Amino acid sequence: MSLNVEFGSDNHSGVHPDIMKAIIDANKGYSIAYGEDELTKSAVKKVREVFGSDIDVFFVYNGTAANIIGLKTVTNSFNSIICADTAHLNVHECCGPEKFTGCKIVTIPTKDGKLTPELIKPYLVGIDDVHMAQPKVISITQSTELGTTYAFDELKKLCSFAHKNNLLVHVDGARICNAAVFLKKDLGKITKDVGVDILSFGGTKNGMMYGEAVVFFDKKLTKDFEFYRKQGMQLTSKMRFISAQFNAFFENNLWEKNAGHANKMAQYLKNELCKIPQIKIVQKVEANMVFAYIPKKHLEKVREKFYFHVFNENACEARLMCSFDTKKESIDELINTIRDTIKK
Amino acid sequence: MSLNVEFGSDNHSGVHPDIMKAIIDANKGYSIAYGEDELTKSAVKKVREVFGSDIDVFFVYNGTAANIIGLKTVTNSFNSIICADTAHLNVHECCGPEKFTGCKIVTIPTKDGKLTPELIKPYLVGIDDVHMAQPKVISITQSTELGTTYAFDELKKLCSFAHKNNLLVHVDGARICNAAVFLKKDLGKITKDVGVDILSFGGTKNGMMYGEAVVFFDKKLTKDFEFYRKQGMQLTSKMRFISAQFNAFFENNLWEKNAGHANKMAQYLKNELCKIPQIKIVQKVEANMVFAYIPKKHLEKVREKFYFHVFNENACEARLMCSFDTKKESIDELINTIRDTIKK
Amino acid sequence: MSLNVEFGSDNHSGVHPDIMKAIIDANKGYSIAYGEDELTKSAVKKVREVFGSDIDVFFVYNGTAANIIGLKTVTNSFNSIICADTAHLNVHECCGPEKFTGCKIVTIPTKDGKLTPELIKPYLVGIDDVHMAQPKVISITQSTELGTTYAFDELKKLCSFAHKNNLLVHVDGARICNAAVFLKKDLGKITKDVGVDILSFGGTKNGMMYGEAVVFFDKKLTKDFEFYRKQGMQLTSKMRFISAQFNAFFENNLWEKNAGHANKMAQYLKNELCKIPQIKIVQKVEANMVFAYIPKKHLEKVREKFYFHVFNENACEARLMCSFDTKKESIDELINTIRDTIKK
Amino acid sequence: MSLNVEFGSDNHSGVHPDIMKAIIDANKGYSIAYGEDELTKSAVKKVREVFGSDIDVFFVYNGTAANIIGLKTVTNSFNSIICADTAHLNVHECCGPEKFTGCKIVTIPTKDGKLTPELIKPYLVGIDDVHMAQPKVISITQSTELGTTYAFDELKKLCSFAHKNNLLVHVDGARICNAAVFLKKDLGKITKDVGVDILSFGGTKNGMMYGEAVVFFDKKLTKDFEFYRKQGMQLTSKMRFISAQFNAFFENNLWEKNAGHANKMAQYLKNELCKIPQIKIVQKVEANMVFAYIPKKHLEKVREKFYFHVFNENACEARLMCSFDTKKESIDELINTIRDTIKK
Repeated sequence: MSLNVEFGSDNHSGVHPDIMKAIIDANKGYSIAYGEDELTKSAVKKVREVFGSDIDVFFVYNGTAANIIGLKTVTNSFNSIICADTAHLNVHECCGPEKFTGCKIVTIPTKDGKLTPELIKPYLVGIDDVHMAQPKVISITQSTELGTTYAFDELKKLCSFAHKNNLLVHVDGARICNAAVFLKKDLGKITKDVGVDILSFGGTKNGMMYGEAVVFFDKKLTKDFEFYRKQGMQLTSKMRFISAQFNAFFENNLWEKNAGHANKMAQYLKNELCKIPQIKIVQKVEANMVFAYIPKKHLEKVREKFYFHVFNENACEARLMCSFDTKKESIDELINTIRDTIKK
Repeated sequence: MSLNVEFGSDNHSGVHPDIMKAIIDANKGYSIAYGEDELTKSAVKKVREVFGSDIDVFFVYNGTAANIIGLKTVTNSFNSIICADTAHLNVHECCGPEKFTGCKIVTIPTKDGKLTPELIKPYLVGIDDVHMAQPKVISITQSTELGTTYAFDELKKLCSFAHKNNLLVHVDGARICNAAVFLKKDLGKITKDVGVDILSFGGTKNGMMYGEAVVFFDKKLTKDFEFYRKQGMQLTSKMRFISAQFNAFFENNLWEKNAGHANKMAQYLKNELCKIPQIKIVQKVEANMVFAYIPKKHLEKVREKFYFHVFNENACEARLMCSFDTKKESIDELINTIRDTIKK
Repeated sequence: MSLNVEFGSDNHSGVHPDIMKAIIDANKGYSIAYGEDELTKSAVKKVREVFGSDIDVFFVYNGTAANIIGLKTVTNSFNSIICADTAHLNVHECCGPEKFTGCKIVTIPTKDGKLTPELIKPYLVGIDDVHMAQPKVISITQSTELGTTYAFDELKKLCSFAHKNNLLVHVDGARICNAAVFLKKDLGKITKDVGVDILSFGGTKNGMMYGEAVVFFDKKLTKDFEFYRKQGMQLTSKMRFISAQFNAFFENNLWEKNAGHANKMAQYLKNELCKIPQIKIVQKVEANMVFAYIPKKHLEKVREKFYFHVFNENACEARLMCSFDTKKESIDELINTIRDTIKK
Repeated sequence: MSLNVEFGSDNHSGVHPDIMKAIIDANKGYSIAYGEDELTKSAVKKVREVFGSDIDVFFVYNGTAANIIGLKTVTNSFNSIICADTAHLNVHECCGPEKFTGCKIVTIPTKDGKLTPELIKPYLVGIDDVHMAQPKVISITQSTELGTTYAFDELKKLCSFAHKNNLLVHVDGARICNAAVFLKKDLGKITKDVGVDILSFGGTKNGMMYGEAVVFFDKKLTKDFEFYRKQGMQLTSKMRFISAQFNAFFENNLWEKNAGHANKMAQYLKNELCKIPQIKIVQKVEANMVFAYIPKKHLEKVREKFYFHVFNENACEARLMCSFDTKKESIDELINTIRDTIKK
């Protein structure tokens, strides 16, 4: 049996058939490049139907770019960006944010990947002191890199706190759909309505091939984005093929179905894991990932058959990801493998 | 009749059916993300079959990125990069090269988009003078932004000149396939064999959906590329979908067929245009584009029906692009439109 | 006889005695660092007496920094800065402007180091085209790197042209005092009154030890300067010692006396050179430098005794600089050396 | 009585008379600019007498620049630099390090401003993982921003740990002289001999007007420094005036006398403060600064007469700095003021 990589990442899945169909359908005739095509207009319209007509939306290739170009658009190089120390933009973007924005990334330790006003307050120092980086943006991840989700009220409080302190709120929404499904809220409800200023809206991890969107809820912030996107190597020529994906993504609420399936599978996986006494769930399961403590000797055995990340090697915390096409049977197989391993 | 955008850019075409088929076929099961999948291994192997086993190749999203990340990998921020003033990296990358590399882009005026040792020599000043940017790379475009092509001997002379002056040679090969077909040479013959050090190898303009490759002919130069690619927001998660395209690109010499068709159409277009006395071909047609002078009053009329760039508005030089799927009938239609316009 | 380096640069001179006295006098007691001291307040006041109370002025260490930090303050990284190809910021700042601003430096060839609207016009392309660097600033040098000076009307025309095209005007005024003296105009007359937006105001080349000023004529542009100055490593702790120099610089019009002497010596040098038939003055002498053609064989001999730059080695153009303390006797000695060399 | 700013910073003092004399003496005749003068040669020689002939040394304007240009020379933009969260380069350089190097600044909380291998170990993650910033340098401050000093053995252990992990060690030595005096060791003993790779060698805070040195103990690291210094706006034209200061600094061990006096005054201040029961010394006094808890109501009163920083406003920790010319009488005055305040 070859290594099963299904739980390694939601990026390990391929493309949802509806998305693929949209790509195939988009491959007709000639279109003006760089976004002046009909499919892009239609995709922008669809995003506006979700978030309101008073927003701006742009497409880029990937989530790292959505974060970095979005943040560059609203910062100067002497600013700081505040995030949880687990944030993708801190840990997994190879100091791309620092290089492209020049900003300091101020990192705050958290237990569950979630920032609060209380946690942030001590870091708001040196305002107007030219020696010190000037705080400009709070960047949160929704749902977080630890599989937890900010509740509606938490978001509202955080945004209100930010704005009172002249800070903007950016949401790394690589998995915003999973959060919306978990919270049973519309996408606009947990972003625009709570006061979020910029959203990296994820598609790839939820069934798309490539392509993410940057949504600006305050159009006054948008002005320079398109120049930074081009300068940041993120303007795709045949944009219709990203736009087609977003069109399908919003057609019949595909985004919701995909995220819903992933979340459901994560719950199932969690529940099955809970039945094994040696396993301990170490983070709330509020999206599509499960963090589970597996005793070291068993962990190593399981990894011989299943490929997944161990978030904290010393603590033996496995990160098990579900996606839009995670199979229940695969979960059962994983569970059985764990049980067998422990039995031996 | 709606605006015909076919000749506006080789980016206005969609995706070749064989490429699309490869994408569809790639959509099976789960693969490790970020390039550790089988399709990527196979694509790298295919590129090595073309250029030799002693090269390194990496995939990025687009040509701007191939240029910038490739150049960053071999420069320090105090270096200069020498190119023709018409170079894509100078004109159409929104100072992305300056921002990401820090380097000075030294631009040299040319008649036909082609650099020569004689043209470059006067710019090689200030070596070891700390006040001055230190020349490090000569970047040429093959085929050029003006549709011309460097001949084998010209390339050899240029590379030899570069190396004698401790400079590297980078080729922006967004249309390297068109050049290879025109020159009737293998891809390796006009790059590795003449002494090129780094190649941006273009796929998108020649029938792919997205994806370009950066080829290093000297593996000692490669070391930092993968970090800069990630930092530069160019590491795609579901890489198999770029790799699948490159696999198809090299299968049955699709790259050659596509470029061959585009070049052939450009020749046909040129020949038809030559039959119209009022039109003047202003650059040699050695790839897939035709630069044609069209008298101002006619130009405006033609543009009401056909969308294309006018390279030099004052000089009324139309840039007419052909691609892998340019239709002979469309050319006839364009020619008829021009004839009709002039007749009136 | 050791090598005479007097004509090599106006930087080869030391510090004017009045400046040195001010430095010594500043060395009393304790002052708050970073500019919150009395001497700095007084220096700012003095600069405002010269340019008007509605300007902002900041001190930095050197001219390269005055240019770069000033330009950064008014640009985004996707902008371009237009200058003569001889501009210090293009030739002699080791791509510091590119690295710190991200901008493209667009260089225009000139005969005399001076830009005109006619020369600039062809470069104002691609406005609002996201693929292209967006022109933002015209940077001129006054007096120029070739020793020529923009006349009042030329400045007015250029600034008016710039503003009509939504461009700002930056003046690299490393030798603005020499220009003012030559033009017999007040400093404000040839900067603020003609519409200049930002001035790098030079002190070091005109008798100071270190220290330059950045003057913003539109206070709305100033906002971010102090953060960029600190981030750009240009905020001096013991600022009183720069400020003291500027205080002395404006006391009894020392700036004017110094520049006046330098200009006078340049005229004397020019006149003496004109008497030698083999020598040819190749640029108008309108400030403190003389560009003179000296036949190759003589040039080499003269350089054995006198150290100076040869601006264009092939053309044998010597750059001979005068400063606030150039001695008439040294000029006579240089002239004699040239005469002797030619005689032999 | 006006506000006494003497204890606000060691930058609030002026210039030591011997340094000033050297500056005055340097003001004779003409010298080649940018470091090719005799005084610079002599200063380099003097630094080599201290650290050994196999080192490289360069002068820059200030300490922020010494840190940033030094670090840039040995890093790529995808690296990380590890430091204490109190480090000047993290807190007080306005994200200049991020902007100029592109690197991530990884900050580690400490109790006393000092890093240890144990503290660093958990941060050495993601080696060779392209998603993550690659650790390259450990930067420590000696003596620290909290007035503490790394002992010889601590330095040795840290350097050995760094090198075993392929990391370089950079010392921000803005107050390295104070540390050397406290440790009763030669400057080379606590830098070169323990394995430090790069040293920002401070002058300004110890009696100079402006000017710091960057010392490379491994000449192989030096290659690009001079280009980055120029590009980083830190190459001074009239360098003789910085070099003259360093010449005086090493003449008759002025550096040692100055630092010795500052340290002695800090001890005296500490001892006097200890006699006041309400005051608590909160950091070891091992250099020229004293961190003292002063109860809030008294603190505010004292600040009406004395200007100093309160390092942690909530914790009421006053930072009291001594310098080469701190007067014992001033300390007595401060102590009396505190006593009077408390009495009332």
